[in-house]
Amino acid sequence: MFDISKIENPEFLAKLSYKEKIQLAADIRSFLIENIAKTGGHLASNLGIVELVIALYSVFDYKNDKFIYDVGHQSYVHKILTGRAKDFSKLRQKDGLSGYISYHESPYDVFESGHSSTSISALAGYLLAGGKHNEHKIIAIIGDASIVNGVSFEALNYLGSLKGYNPIIILNDNKMGISKSVGSLNLVFDKLRSKKFIIRLKRVLNNILPTFITNSFHHFKRAIKGFIQHDNIFEDLGFDYYGPIDGNNIKSVTKALERIKNLEGPILLHVLTEKGRGYSLAEQDDIGTFHGVEPFDPRTGKPLRKKLPNIHSFSEVVCEALCLLREKTEFYVITPATKVGAKLEKFYKLYPDYLIDVGIAEEHAAVMAAGLVLGGKRAMVLMYSTFSQRAYDFFLNDICRPNIPVIIGIDRAGVVGHDGSTHQGIYDVSMFSSMPNIIVCEPRNATETIGLFHQALLTNKPVAIRYPRRNTYVDFTQYKIGLTPFKWEIIKTGTKGIVIAYGPILNYLERIINENNLDVMLVNARVIKPIDEEMLDYLKSLNLKALVIEEVIISGSLYAKILEAGYYNVNKINFAVDDVIQQGGIEEMLDLYGFSAENIIKEIKKLYEN
Amino acid sequence: MFDISKIENPEFLAKLSYKEKIQLAADIRSFLIENIAKTGGHLASNLGIVELVIALYSVFDYKNDKFIYDVGHQSYVHKILTGRAKDFSKLRQKDGLSGYISYHESPYDVFESGHSSTSISALAGYLLAGGKHNEHKIIAIIGDASIVNGVSFEALNYLGSLKGYNPIIILNDNKMGISKSVGSLNLVFDKLRSKKFIIRLKRVLNNILPTFITNSFHHFKRAIKGFIQHDNIFEDLGFDYYGPIDGNNIKSVTKALERIKNLEGPILLHVLTEKGRGYSLAEQDDIGTFHGVEPFDPRTGKPLRKKLPNIHSFSEVVCEALCLLREKTEFYVITPATKVGAKLEKFYKLYPDYLIDVGIAEEHAAVMAAGLVLGGKRAMVLMYSTFSQRAYDFFLNDICRPNIPVIIGIDRAGVVGHDGSTHQGIYDVSMFSSMPNIIVCEPRNATETIGLFHQALLTNKPVAIRYPRRNTYVDFTQYKIGLTPFKWEIIKTGTKGIVIAYGPILNYLERIINENNLDVMLVNARVIKPIDEEMLDYLKSLNLKALVIEEVIISGSLYAKILEAGYYNVNKINFAVDDVIQQGGIEEMLDLYGFSAENIIKEIKKLYEN
Repeated sequence: MFDISKIENPEFLAKLSYKEKIQLAADIRSFLIENIAKTGGHLASNLGIVELVIALYSVFDYKNDKFIYDVGHQSYVHKILTGRAKDFSKLRQKDGLSGYISYHESPYDVFESGHSSTSISALAGYLLAGGKHNEHKIIAIIGDASIVNGVSFEALNYLGSLKGYNPIIILNDNKMGISKSVGSLNLVFDKLRSKKFIIRLKRVLNNILPTFITNSFHHFKRAIKGFIQHDNIFEDLGFDYYGPIDGNNIKSVTKALERIKNLEGPILLHVLTEKGRGYSLAEQDDIGTFHGVEPFDPRTGKPLRKKLPNIHSFSEVVCEALCLLREKTEFYVITPATKVGAKLEKFYKLYPDYLIDVGIAEEHAAVMAAGLVLGGKRAMVLMYSTFSQRAYDFFLNDICRPNIPVIIGIDRAGVVGHDGSTHQGIYDVSMFSSMPNIIVCEPRNATETIGLFHQALLTNKPVAIRYPRRNTYVDFTQYKIGLTPFKWEIIKTGTKGIVIAYGPILNYLERIINENNLDVMLVNARVIKPIDEEMLDYLKSLNLKALVIEEVIISGSLYAKILEAGYYNVNKINFAVDDVIQQGGIEEMLDLYGFSAENIIKEIKKLYEN
Repeated sequence: MFDISKIENPEFLAKLSYKEKIQLAADIRSFLIENIAKTGGHLASNLGIVELVIALYSVFDYKNDKFIYDVGHQSYVHKILTGRAKDFSKLRQKDGLSGYISYHESPYDVFESGHSSTSISALAGYLLAGGKHNEHKIIAIIGDASIVNGVSFEALNYLGSLKGYNPIIILNDNKMGISKSVGSLNLVFDKLRSKKFIIRLKRVLNNILPTFITNSFHHFKRAIKGFIQHDNIFEDLGFDYYGPIDGNNIKSVTKALERIKNLEGPILLHVLTEKGRGYSLAEQDDIGTFHGVEPFDPRTGKPLRKKLPNIHSFSEVVCEALCLLREKTEFYVITPATKVGAKLEKFYKLYPDYLIDVGIAEEHAAVMAAGLVLGGKRAMVLMYSTFSQRAYDFFLNDICRPNIPVIIGIDRAGVVGHDGSTHQGIYDVSMFSSMPNIIVCEPRNATETIGLFHQALLTNKPVAIRYPRRNTYVDFTQYKIGLTPFKWEIIKTGTKGIVIAYGPILNYLERIINENNLDVMLVNARVIKPIDEEMLDYLKSLNLKALVIEEVIISGSLYAKILEAGYYNVNKINFAVDDVIQQGGIEEMLDLYGFSAENIIKEIKKLYEN
C-alpha cells in the first residue's frame, strides 16, 4: 500500500518493480475514486490513464522532458505524481487545485488548454524552441476523440514533414472521447485496434528480443513495417506508427515506451486504455456519465445532490423544447461531441436522423449547418459557449455575413463554475456582437426558452440563443410551445431608476427588488443584439439612471450597446475584459464580481441618487 | 473561335467535340488573360482549371447538380460558362462582378466563402439536405493547399463514414496552393503524383474498356485497388480514391468524370492541373506572383502601375522592420501560407530557419507560437486580419488568457478593396478587444511600425500590431530601429474639438486639418487596447467634443472604449456592425462610409458647435 498523499515527485518510481507499480496503480485508483466522489471532477479518463502515466515518468526524464496533456482533464495522475495529491480535497474549488493543467501550480504543467486538440501544435512549438537533435523529449498525450479535430490534423501535417526533430505522440485511445467517438478516423482506429496479429507480433518483439537489440529495433521495425502497416493515416502523415499496445498493462506500456524513447523522427504510439478502469460502474458506462461527475456515492455511482422535482438544467429544457418543436417543424440539430453534455439524448432517441454528432469539430459543424440551410432545410448547431469560440470565423463569414438563417444554441453561457478560466462562457456576446445580421438573445425561463427557439425557426436571419449552466423550474408535463418576440419587456415598473438585464438572473433580480421594496423598473432585455431601440428610446425619455447587469465581459456587451445608442446615464455590473475568471462555485464567483444580493441592492440604491 | 462574351449557359457544351473543347479552352484562356490584365484579379488558378470546369459542365447536370468551389477565387471559368463573361470588364470593381462566388450573382453560385477549406463541410450540408440516395450530385472542387486545413479534415472525417450518400470531391492539385504547398500531406501528394504506374493503368482503363463496362468499373477498380493504392490518406478516411489524372487534358478529365459520376459512396478524384497554364510567365512562376494580380501588361507580365520611389506597402515595411530587428534579437515568424502575400520573402532569404510557413493552418500557427514562447523563444505570427478570425479561440484561450507574450502581426487591417466582403479587415479590433491581457495597436507610418514591433519584443504580454493593405513613404536606406511607446500622442493642438484616430489615416487627417485651417486637436491613439487612460482623462478635462475616426466596426472599437471610459461627448466615423462592406476601390468604399475629406471636414466642424 502506498500513501498517495505523500508522493512528492516521480523519483521513487525508478526503484519499483512491476508488481509494486501494479499496487501503486491500484492505490492511485482508490485515491481518485475516493476524492472525486467528494469533490466531483473528471473520473473515467483519469482511471484509464494510470499505468500510462506511471510508465511515462518511469521511462522518461521527468525533470527535463516535457509532457503535454491534451485538454488536461486527464492530468490528475500527473498531478499526483508531481506532488499535488495532498491538494485533492480542494480539487476544482475556489483557490484550490485546478481540474486542468495550470501554469501556476507546477513547473511540470507545461501547456494549459482546457479546450481540445492543441497538444500537438504546442509540442511543435516546444520542439522548435529546443532546437534540432535535442536530447530532451517532448511528448503529447492526446485522446482518440481529440485527435480528429482540425487543429490536431494541421499540427500532424506540419510535424510529419519536419526533419531533425523527434516528436512523440501518445494516442490515448479509450474508444470514446467524452462519449462514443465518431467519424472515419474512428473506423481506422477500429481496424488498428483489431489487429490482433500486430499486437501478437509486438508482444514477441517486446518480450523475446534481448535489450541489446533495442537500438536496432528501429531498423527491424522498418523492415517489418512493409507488410503490417498498410493503410494507416499516421504513416501517411510521416509518423512512424507503433501499436496498438495495452495501456493498462504496466509492463507492456513500459516496454513500448522504452523502445520508442530514442527513436528518430516523428513517432506515434497507439495505446489502448480503458476509460473508467478499476471502477466497474464507470467501466460499463459508454455514454459518458462518468466523464465529468458531481460529488457522488461511490457505492451506487449516484450523485449526492438530490434532483428536486421540476427543477431542470437549461440544457434539459432546451432538449425538451426541441423535441416539442420538432413535432411541428423539420429541422436538424448538429452537435460537436456534446450530445450527452448538452443533454440531447431524448431528442436523439426520438429523431436519430436529425441529431448529428460530428465529434469535436466545431468548425465543420458550423459550415455544415450553413450548407444544410442553403440546401433547403432548417438547421441548428448547439455548442458550449466556450467551444463556440472555435467556430468564430465560420459563424461570421459563412453564416452571418451572407445572412444564412442557422440557429445557434449556446449552452453554458455565463460563469461556469468549477471548470475555471478556460471554460467561462463570458465571451460569446462580444463575439456575436461583431457579426452582421445575427440576433442574439437569452431566455429568462423555460417558457422563454421554447418561445425563443420557436421565434428563431420563424425568422429569416441567423439567431444565437444562449443559456446558462444552471437550473430552472419547469413542469415538463405542462410544457408547451409558445412564441417569445425578439423584444424587450418591462417586468416591473418603478420610479427611481431602471435595472436592465437578460436571462435567468432576472428572476433573482425580481426577487431582490420585491423583497427589498426597491422602487425601480426591471427590464427584460432578452434580445441583446440588436437592441430594442423603441424600448430604449422610451427608457431614455424617462430620464432615470439605469443599471445594466450581465454575466459577460464589457467589450460588445449590452452595456456597451446602450452607451453606443446614446443612453449615457448608466452604471453596470459585469466583467472587465482583462479579468480572467478563475474556478469556484458559480455563486461564489458571481459574488466576487459584484453579483451578490448585497452589492446589487447597493448599486440599485445608487440609482436613487440621480 | 468562340465568342466567349456571348456564352449564356453550359448547354452548348453537349454538342462539342473534344477538338472543339480544346479550342474553347484556348479561347477562354485568351479571354481571361485579356480581361484580368485590365482589371486585375486571380489569374493563375483560373488558367489552370479551364479543362476541368468544361468537363464538369459537360459530364454533370449543371442545372441540378451543385458545384462548390473552395475559396472561390478559381471560379472565373464557372462564371463564364454560367453566363457572366459579359460582366468581366467590371470584375472586382464596385457594383461589378465579384472575384469570388456570390449568392447575388447567380443561382449556380451555391456556396460563398472567400476563406479556404469550407467546401467539403458545405458539401456535407447540401448532401444531407438532399437526403439519401439522391440522384443529384454535390461536387466540391478544392485545391491541394486548402485541403490540408483543419476544417477540411474534419469534414473528410465526417463524410468518409457516412452511409447512403455519394459525395464527390475533386482535388484540384496544382502543387502550390498560393505558392508552394507545405506539410506531410504535400509529400503524400508528391508520391501520388509520381505514380506513373497508376496513371498508365488508369489510361488503360479509360481508353481501352468499352463503355458498356463502365458500370462494372467500380467493382473492377475495387479488385485492383488492393495492390495499387496502399498508403493513401483518403482511402484511410473512407473515400474511394481515383487518380491522379491530367486535368489539363480535356479527354482524360472528361472520361474520369464520366467514370466516377455514378459510383456509390464517397469519391475523391485527384486531378493534376498546371497553375498559369497557357500563359508562359505564369506557368514558370512558382512563388505565386501570378496568383492574384493588379492590372498588368500581358506581354511583359509587369504591373501597369509604376512603383514610386520610396513608396512601399505596409507589408514590405513590416518585413524590412523584422529584418532589422532580427539582427539584434532572436525571434521566429510563423505565417499561414502568406509568405508571398505578406511580402516576407526577404526575411525568409536572410533567416530561412526562422520563417515558418505552416500552410493554410492559422490555428496551428497560433498554438505553435504559444509553444515556442513557452519553450523559451520569442515568436510572432503574421496573418491577414480576415484570416486571423480562424484562430480566435487560440488567441483567446492559449495566448491571451494565460498571458503568453506572442506578437501577432495583423496584415490587411481595415478596408481591403477589391476582394470585397469576405476579406474586410474590420473585425480584428473587436475580436482582440474581447481578450484579456493583449495590447492592440496600429502604426501610422514606417517609423512607428518598427517602433511598435520593437516595443512588442520588449513587452511581456501578447501584442497585436495591425497594419493596412496600403502604401506608405519610407526610404529603406535610412530605415532604422526606434522605439514607439504604447501611449497616445498629441500630433497637433487645437481649441475647438478633438479628433482621435490611429494608423495611417492620421496622416490624411493631419493634411485635411492643416489645409483647411481647422482649429482642432489631433490625437494619435496608436494603442487601441488598453486605451491610454491618463491621456483620455486629460482630453476629458478639456471639455471639448471629440470625433473618433476608425476603419473598424463599432462593437469593441476605440469609440466604444472611450464611451465605456465615461467620455460621452463623442461622435464617430466608422462601420456599423451590420454593414457588410462590399467590393470596390479602397478609397471609393471609404468615401461611401463617410471617410471622404468633405464629410470629415463636415464632421469636424460639428465639433465647433459644442
